[in-house]
Amino acid sequence: MTKNHFSYTLGIDLGGTNTELGLVRGDGHIVSRTVLSTTKYTDFPTFVGDMVKAIAELAAAGDPATGWRGTVNDLQGIGIGAPNADPTRGCMVEPPNLKQFKGVSNFVEEFRAHGVTIPVRVDNDANAAAYGEYIYGGAKGMEHFIMITLGTGVGSGIVVDGRLVHGSTGTAGELGHNILIPDGRPCSCGRKGCLEAYTSARGIVQTYRELGGTLANADSKAIGDAANAGDSVALETFRQVGRWLGIACANAVTFSAPQSIFLMGGPTKVGKPLLEPLQASFEEHLLNIYQGKCDIRMSQLHANEVAILGAAALAEVRSER
Amino acid sequence: MTKNHFSYTLGIDLGGTNTELGLVRGDGHIVSRTVLSTTKYTDFPTFVGDMVKAIAELAAAGDPATGWRGTVNDLQGIGIGAPNADPTRGCMVEPPNLKQFKGVSNFVEEFRAHGVTIPVRVDNDANAAAYGEYIYGGAKGMEHFIMITLGTGVGSGIVVDGRLVHGSTGTAGELGHNILIPDGRPCSCGRKGCLEAYTSARGIVQTYRELGGTLANADSKAIGDAANAGDSVALETFRQVGRWLGIACANAVTFSAPQSIFLMGGPTKVGKPLLEPLQASFEEHLLNIYQGKCDIRMSQLHANEVAILGAAALAEVRSER
Repeated sequence: MTKNHFSYTLGIDLGGTNTELGLVRGDGHIVSRTVLSTTKYTDFPTFVGDMVKAIAELAAAGDPATGWRGTVNDLQGIGIGAPNADPTRGCMVEPPNLKQFKGVSNFVEEFRAHGVTIPVRVDNDANAAAYGEYIYGGAKGMEHFIMITLGTGVGSGIVVDGRLVHGSTGTAGELGHNILIPDGRPCSCGRKGCLEAYTSARGIVQTYRELGGTLANADSKAIGDAANAGDSVALETFRQVGRWLGIACANAVTFSAPQSIFLMGGPTKVGKPLLEPLQASFEEHLLNIYQGKCDIRMSQLHANEVAILGAAALAEVRSER
Repeated sequence: MTKNHFSYTLGIDLGGTNTELGLVRGDGHIVSRTVLSTTKYTDFPTFVGDMVKAIAELAAAGDPATGWRGTVNDLQGIGIGAPNADPTRGCMVEPPNLKQFKGVSNFVEEFRAHGVTIPVRVDNDANAAAYGEYIYGGAKGMEHFIMITLGTGVGSGIVVDGRLVHGSTGTAGELGHNILIPDGRPCSCGRKGCLEAYTSARGIVQTYRELGGTLANADSKAIGDAANAGDSVALETFRQVGRWLGIACANAVTFSAPQSIFLMGGPTKVGKPLLEPLQASFEEHLLNIYQGKCDIRMSQLHANEVAILGAAALAEVRSER
């Protein structure tokens, strides 16, 4: 291994279709990346074995900018963002979009079986995104913050005292399934009125339809474009979504009094039509003792980097108590 | 100081009318207690000076059961449950019911000025109650739990990884002001739809009135008695309160995935009329991944001991990071 003053970690974004691997320098630069086809694998040990080979290649190629190169075990650690992750045990459990991996798939044990001795950490996407913001993004130095990810679903990662809240089950931080409107809209989880039912991409489309929006095949991106072009139904859609999200953010503050709540994900890209009503609603609904002390911010990580950086960050953080 | 295998701490419950002080043995037994009239004091240093004298007397009298006696500085610590506490700085700030103590009243500094060298910890009532449950009650050994206190208001203390969540402001854990029903009932905080507006003693009375309850001068205790005597309006009142509280508890689980949520306070004393609908609502509204993993329990501390024990517990816990 060629030494330099940076450490290097490996971030893995395990998705239903593809698994992306990236070599990340300590300053948050993704040096190199590679992709495996997740669907190709039916056998977990083979899958991890191919990951190890891919990581070895990335490490051997190293970082041309600094001259660093090494082996897998020269890395500081491997972080994996995976669905249905159990960070306590280092595994994923019956991931719904990866039905080929049945039961418990233990990354730590499988990497060890392949000769990997460095730390291996696993967590869900939203928690990884939160850590990514903490290590490489806008939450550097914040001991208390929350990340909310808007997309197909609504996820969250909650950092208290500089550590992700995993709770007694390992699965804490599911603010997307906080019930915002009792007996409200049906949610994908089978209950009613969850934040996700109102502020996910699907929730945005539903609101647009309920308000009489007529754009054909509109997704949240198209509704966002319409809003920015001045379409009144699209603007009202995001006004309502912003209002709901502002209430949810104000509620989250009563829990952990974070310095900031960070937002990321496709629907946030619309900008002003969402962010102005969101900010107004947050201020309106924030309990007086928190006013002026907690704010809402956009993630500082790039959309195409956050998954790799978040995963890599899992391996950067100080060890669990 | 006579040594024995117990440690002794001093718990102080600072109220608007009286300030109670209790000598607490490490096994959670309140050995002795005394009371100062809070209203008598207009000057904070004099107030703390008299507390120190009172503590010295309690310590000198000691514990007849074990033969222990000592001085103030032989105690393990002093814990204070106080309104508007700032646990980070060890003070209270402009407590609304103690208008004689203006600005910042710093307990740590003032006890030091009176020669007290042992740890002095300050926190609000609900956080103290949570710690009391953790050290002396039903939450022993639980690294993740939440305490919700129902009374004139609704307070909460949240323990994550064995530590109270104080947040970036020192004032985290205000679940009473989570907005349960957007645009709902006016709350004492000036906003609308807070949990407190529905499940505090006042909220219970309001629901009873809205349902047409006719009992004269009914308070939550009287409505509880009526419910237990079979009064249908009173029963429906607690059914609704239980349902709301169940949603709030299910929402709290999405945050920190506690092993248990503990409840205490006058309105919980009604028993079945509240607890059965609460349990049903909690199960109905709990996200599937938490089902069977998080439960609701009653505090195991006695109502007339919890304030002293909670305060004493503040001085028992491991030091802050």
